[in-house]
Amino acid sequence: MQKITLQEVVTRDGFQIEEQFVTTEKKIELINRLSEAAVDKIEVTSFVSPKAVPNLSDAKEVMNGINRTPGVTYSALVLNLRGTERAAECGVEEVNLVVSVSNTHNKKNVRRTTEQSFENFQEMMDYLSSTKMSVNGTLATSFGCPYEGDVSEDKVLRLVDQYLELGATGITLADTTGMATPKQVFELSEKVLKRWAYLPLALHFHNTRGMGLANVMEGIRAGVTRYDASLGGLGGCPFAPGATGNVCTEDLVHMLTFMGYEVGANLDQLIDSAKYLQDVLGHEVPGQVIKAGKITDLHPISE
Amino acid sequence: MQKITLQEVVTRDGFQIEEQFVTTEKKIELINRLSEAAVDKIEVTSFVSPKAVPNLSDAKEVMNGINRTPGVTYSALVLNLRGTERAAECGVEEVNLVVSVSNTHNKKNVRRTTEQSFENFQEMMDYLSSTKMSVNGTLATSFGCPYEGDVSEDKVLRLVDQYLELGATGITLADTTGMATPKQVFELSEKVLKRWAYLPLALHFHNTRGMGLANVMEGIRAGVTRYDASLGGLGGCPFAPGATGNVCTEDLVHMLTFMGYEVGANLDQLIDSAKYLQDVLGHEVPGQVIKAGKITDLHPISE
Repeated sequence: MQKITLQEVVTRDGFQIEEQFVTTEKKIELINRLSEAAVDKIEVTSFVSPKAVPNLSDAKEVMNGINRTPGVTYSALVLNLRGTERAAECGVEEVNLVVSVSNTHNKKNVRRTTEQSFENFQEMMDYLSSTKMSVNGTLATSFGCPYEGDVSEDKVLRLVDQYLELGATGITLADTTGMATPKQVFELSEKVLKRWAYLPLALHFHNTRGMGLANVMEGIRAGVTRYDASLGGLGGCPFAPGATGNVCTEDLVHMLTFMGYEVGANLDQLIDSAKYLQDVLGHEVPGQVIKAGKITDLHPISE
Repeated sequence: MQKITLQEVVTRDGFQIEEQFVTTEKKIELINRLSEAAVDKIEVTSFVSPKAVPNLSDAKEVMNGINRTPGVTYSALVLNLRGTERAAECGVEEVNLVVSVSNTHNKKNVRRTTEQSFENFQEMMDYLSSTKMSVNGTLATSFGCPYEGDVSEDKVLRLVDQYLELGATGITLADTTGMATPKQVFELSEKVLKRWAYLPLALHFHNTRGMGLANVMEGIRAGVTRYDASLGGLGGCPFAPGATGNVCTEDLVHMLTFMGYEVGANLDQLIDSAKYLQDVLGHEVPGQVIKAGKITDLHPISE
């Protein structure tokens, strides 16, 4: 069976909307646990304005405090040149750029049009070419916009092209507010991979309307092998009204493992880490396997 | 696109494990709403011992109190001859028999071996042949047993055969405690439909580990067009430790509708009914679309 690559986003996408600040120490502890559980990539934090995302204001301290495990890529989200420089100073290995396919969503999110975001990326790429950092380009609202509704597949393809021309070496199609249906995932993924067969393409789903794992299955069927997920299913976008959690890491790894896919990450360590996360947050997380147990956790007959 | 048939089980599978008794009047009101929403079949109640399932002790009053809508089939679960006779007296159109593929689960559930259940079914079928009621045979734990673990596909096929020999005209493979993976669903469904190409085969999933909708997608891919679902995602089996809800009706219809499948049931009426259900129960239900809204529920740009 295929190898599926797992990109953990809990400490970025998950924590950015938490009401309470998670201490730097606990963030570092959680990331170290995720490294030990052998996820393939960790989006550690964002280097953005502490005013915009107060929960990630300790980006530098977190990046400098974590243990680096060989085989794990440590990435961070950046929105401008200053953030990119700060990421470089902390030894970030990959930066993740984000623009929304929907103009309205992009304006709401970063107060720029899609085209203005790309002008801005050019400036960042000029700097990035002098560093060792690799660049991933994320297209938010690739499967629908909570303000505009349907987005055009042609626009998605055009923006993938723009990212690649800029020099991005990976692309993520993000379903920012959980609007993708399995059918749509299959069709759009197939189109992208038909045009760029060897593109490292990742899919980022939210389970907002329960379709998260079904969407992953259709992505796999279309040939996509890289998936973002968030421990405990934590997450959402503060600018996307009504959104609930991301696809849950341990639920995803549980499903894939028991279907025989090769997943580098260790399921038991992820489940333990999700329980630790729940303790850190002091509230329940949406993940289901930490509640129900694995399908191999049998019950004694005498029960 | 294909027509997908929807079989609603909330007032049976959902209510049987509710802590509080739902009044007969409210059960009738909910079933009438589901009929108006045009689901294809409603498993109204069970005619079982009121001691075993006190929440369904008003089976007769509920069956006699509901409005019958043409095009909707009204079924009930029965476990013995007495229950079957009671069902007939109330004008039940289809009885649903249940046996677990796993011997251990069957003993826990009905204090009989699998073979003893089938002996018992013979007696019920002798009576049923004198009535107009049709017979559906459900195989619980078709995808795994919480006590025994893996179940044999050969045993599932053998029990389908036994049901058909008895005279059942429909079969349901039930994932009683949410152990099925999408891969397993595809493979077992394909095997059953390969052997009995025209069999009215239904799948009954629980979302215990988040795989519910992914399992439906793989069932559809294998050619299965009938699905059980429970409004609000309510449900579980009192004899299956740790189980949470069934596949959620409105989440399922939401997904299928936006993929272009023909679903008789009306999504908006189902969402309204799920909200009514929540009011009746006085607690949240696991369904996600009632929280997040439909993917077409856009947000004003000025927000």
